[in-house]
Amino acid sequence: MNAPADSAAFAPLVSPREVPEAFLAELRARFGAQCSTALAVREHHGRDESVYVDMPAPAAVVFAESRRDVQDAVKLCARHQVPIIPFGIGSSLEGHLLAVQGGISLDLSRMNQVLSINAEDLTVTVQPGVTRKQLNEELKSTGLFFPIDPGADATVGGMCATRASGTNAVRYGTMRENVLALEVVTARAEVIRTGTRARKSSAGYDLTRLMVGSEGTLGVMTEITLRIYPLPEAILAAICSFPSIADAVHTVIEIIQLGVPIARVELLDGKTVAMVNRHAKLSLREEPMLLMEFHGSPAGVKEQAETVQDLASGHGGQAFEWATTPEERTRLWTARHNAYFAGVQSRPGCRAISTDTCVPISRLAECLLDSAAEADASGITYFLVGHVGDGNFHFGYLVDPRDAKELALAEDLNHKLVSRALRLGGTCTGEHGVGLHKMDFLREEAGLGAIAMMRAIKQALDPDNILNPGKIFSA
Amino acid sequence: MNAPADSAAFAPLVSPREVPEAFLAELRARFGAQCSTALAVREHHGRDESVYVDMPAPAAVVFAESRRDVQDAVKLCARHQVPIIPFGIGSSLEGHLLAVQGGISLDLSRMNQVLSINAEDLTVTVQPGVTRKQLNEELKSTGLFFPIDPGADATVGGMCATRASGTNAVRYGTMRENVLALEVVTARAEVIRTGTRARKSSAGYDLTRLMVGSEGTLGVMTEITLRIYPLPEAILAAICSFPSIADAVHTVIEIIQLGVPIARVELLDGKTVAMVNRHAKLSLREEPMLLMEFHGSPAGVKEQAETVQDLASGHGGQAFEWATTPEERTRLWTARHNAYFAGVQSRPGCRAISTDTCVPISRLAECLLDSAAEADASGITYFLVGHVGDGNFHFGYLVDPRDAKELALAEDLNHKLVSRALRLGGTCTGEHGVGLHKMDFLREEAGLGAIAMMRAIKQALDPDNILNPGKIFSA
Repeated sequence: MNAPADSAAFAPLVSPREVPEAFLAELRARFGAQCSTALAVREHHGRDESVYVDMPAPAAVVFAESRRDVQDAVKLCARHQVPIIPFGIGSSLEGHLLAVQGGISLDLSRMNQVLSINAEDLTVTVQPGVTRKQLNEELKSTGLFFPIDPGADATVGGMCATRASGTNAVRYGTMRENVLALEVVTARAEVIRTGTRARKSSAGYDLTRLMVGSEGTLGVMTEITLRIYPLPEAILAAICSFPSIADAVHTVIEIIQLGVPIARVELLDGKTVAMVNRHAKLSLREEPMLLMEFHGSPAGVKEQAETVQDLASGHGGQAFEWATTPEERTRLWTARHNAYFAGVQSRPGCRAISTDTCVPISRLAECLLDSAAEADASGITYFLVGHVGDGNFHFGYLVDPRDAKELALAEDLNHKLVSRALRLGGTCTGEHGVGLHKMDFLREEAGLGAIAMMRAIKQALDPDNILNPGKIFSA
Repeated sequence: MNAPADSAAFAPLVSPREVPEAFLAELRARFGAQCSTALAVREHHGRDESVYVDMPAPAAVVFAESRRDVQDAVKLCARHQVPIIPFGIGSSLEGHLLAVQGGISLDLSRMNQVLSINAEDLTVTVQPGVTRKQLNEELKSTGLFFPIDPGADATVGGMCATRASGTNAVRYGTMRENVLALEVVTARAEVIRTGTRARKSSAGYDLTRLMVGSEGTLGVMTEITLRIYPLPEAILAAICSFPSIADAVHTVIEIIQLGVPIARVELLDGKTVAMVNRHAKLSLREEPMLLMEFHGSPAGVKEQAETVQDLASGHGGQAFEWATTPEERTRLWTARHNAYFAGVQSRPGCRAISTDTCVPISRLAECLLDSAAEADASGITYFLVGHVGDGNFHFGYLVDPRDAKELALAEDLNHKLVSRALRLGGTCTGEHGVGLHKMDFLREEAGLGAIAMMRAIKQALDPDNILNPGKIFSA
């Protein structure tokens, strides 16, 4: 059950089903200008931020503007047995959006309304095409915010689909914890609702959590109700440099074990700090660095920060610097969020193969350091960032996507890292999802029995396999 | 789609399947003394804390001591098409355990080992028969604790099965948020693992969350990995009396909306305080009362408590009293946990029909007050407690389970309350689950489409319908 350690891992099973001309005619008749078969549009919807290149484009793109549009698109696809792939903004990293079995792309980016803000209940209901930045912009006047922040300005629908998280998850949880309810169009084009606006419920199977992370294979989300949070009274950001990655990681382990309610704690290695400096015109010390944030009352954040500063000092932490103004904070966090792009731009024409393992915190140092040593020994170029408070980190191996040798090397490193993480009680993907790229890893992690259970659920809810087929597990 | 407002709701569909003698013989041969067909044992396993009386007992009880026992019991049941009902400690409130379709009870209480405590990672792995008190006893020396605390000393397996919560959920979440991974024996007697010890994961369908809350209908859990937490540096408990329930509830709403990280905030109405006083020999003021707890650093809990005291004063809160010693705290919280029993014992021979609605916090006052007025007008005896920080509260209507008129009255009140909660964006069950008793309510809440999806999943994972059949949705 090993993932092949050569570029075969990058040749996913591509077997486009035929898209009947009658289907396309019906699609055009129903959707008019909302349906495009222009090559540029199709190609744009046939790729993402993953390493896959030269993949077949979908046969058409439908720009849904309403639940009814989604239902009608699914209905047509069901009748003609044509695959349909929900599309948000195209920022997925694992090939989730690629039309490996042909079919059409269902672009949800025009369904971008914030439908209701229930400030008193700390909930908001949005359409799937709302992006996280747009949402926080619309929440601004309420004194509330939505904390989940993957690097890209992803859509809420995409974030649900991949069970995304980001830098705030150590304090606020992931999409798993923050989606309260959904409206979903099923494979039969029926509309169901899962969950309510109540904070908790024991009302039957947790369909909400089943949909979150199902990568568009079980239904198309058309409304999403999220938890939101009061903006903290005080926010304090800090950076601290360390003599080694090990020192930084051991500091984080102690922060978590002590139960300090830190809101964010991000690791960058020295080389990545250098890339970020160049990209964002900063002059951070080019050493392993923790970038942290504390949320709470003024006294509370001070107390947290002092505790952390003590812990850091015990591991050689130095150049502890505070960023208290919103501008300073934004500058630092923007730099962190752009680390991925800083990495990719450091080598023109390259793509990043991003690893995404997540391990129990006590095994973080071992997992991260052994994998860094392995990458260093291989000579590959990479960046390294981590949501280390969760035990989650990303190597971004920077490869030429058309160089089979580089691809094989990166994939071999990735596979060794995943095997190590699984041995240490972790997972192959903390937040990016499986898509095409991690199907072998998922099999290794979950085992054939659990995969069979997932497959049985898929078959029960989408018997004709029209919803984003060929993802998560091959089918 | 209304639930019938008469005692018909208390005559669940009972249609025991025949249990072949050959099956019982095989069961006895395999399990020997671990298998009992004694009437007293069977009857004990054929009832719970629900209102149902005179229900058929299971044909036999198997006391599982290992995963292998569970597999073999399921295997035998599968071969003979005999229902199998997992049993923890019998504290469920909604008829989850009743053998309405016959079959056997699988008692898991002997599988009560704490398998591993990973203090560094804040995780623990247990067998399903471990109870919450036993778990916290075994964690004591580590400085860690498991916060989920339903009233009864339930088993962890039972708490998983019903997606339980309790008084700490406002701060620490419910079983939904605190189960990391499971080992499950499927309907085919295969063993699968869901999840890992990593804090977060995007690895395929969230089978863990699908199992949590599935009430024994999708598999039998044999190992459960939970999140645990550092015991707070400081704990402060407080009680405060209010002129009216409305004042108490409005105080809670403000606490939550302000984002105060309160650990517990429980409401008791004046009559319930009186019952608790009698039961626990306390002398609390017999007025609406909030019982609260703050966790954090010494400075942090002081700050939280002061904020809350201010808010309470604004709503006529008085007699704010602190309990700082562990003994005082334990006495108060034990009294709160025993409110259910205090209520039931206040009327000899009665049973409690416990409501369990949960609404968005802004609608809590409306939902609770209108329902209290309705209950008062009806003349029914009840107790009233609430995890009000979550918008969750329980009326316990105290009825003679053999008096059809009282049952009908209680059920009518319950149904009106549920309809009100659903109108206000809430759920029919915050933490007790559906079992037999809330099947109609679930249909009203989730709608036929979502129920059909649940049914499709059940059918896919348990095609012969042997795992606790006839619960959640009729089948």
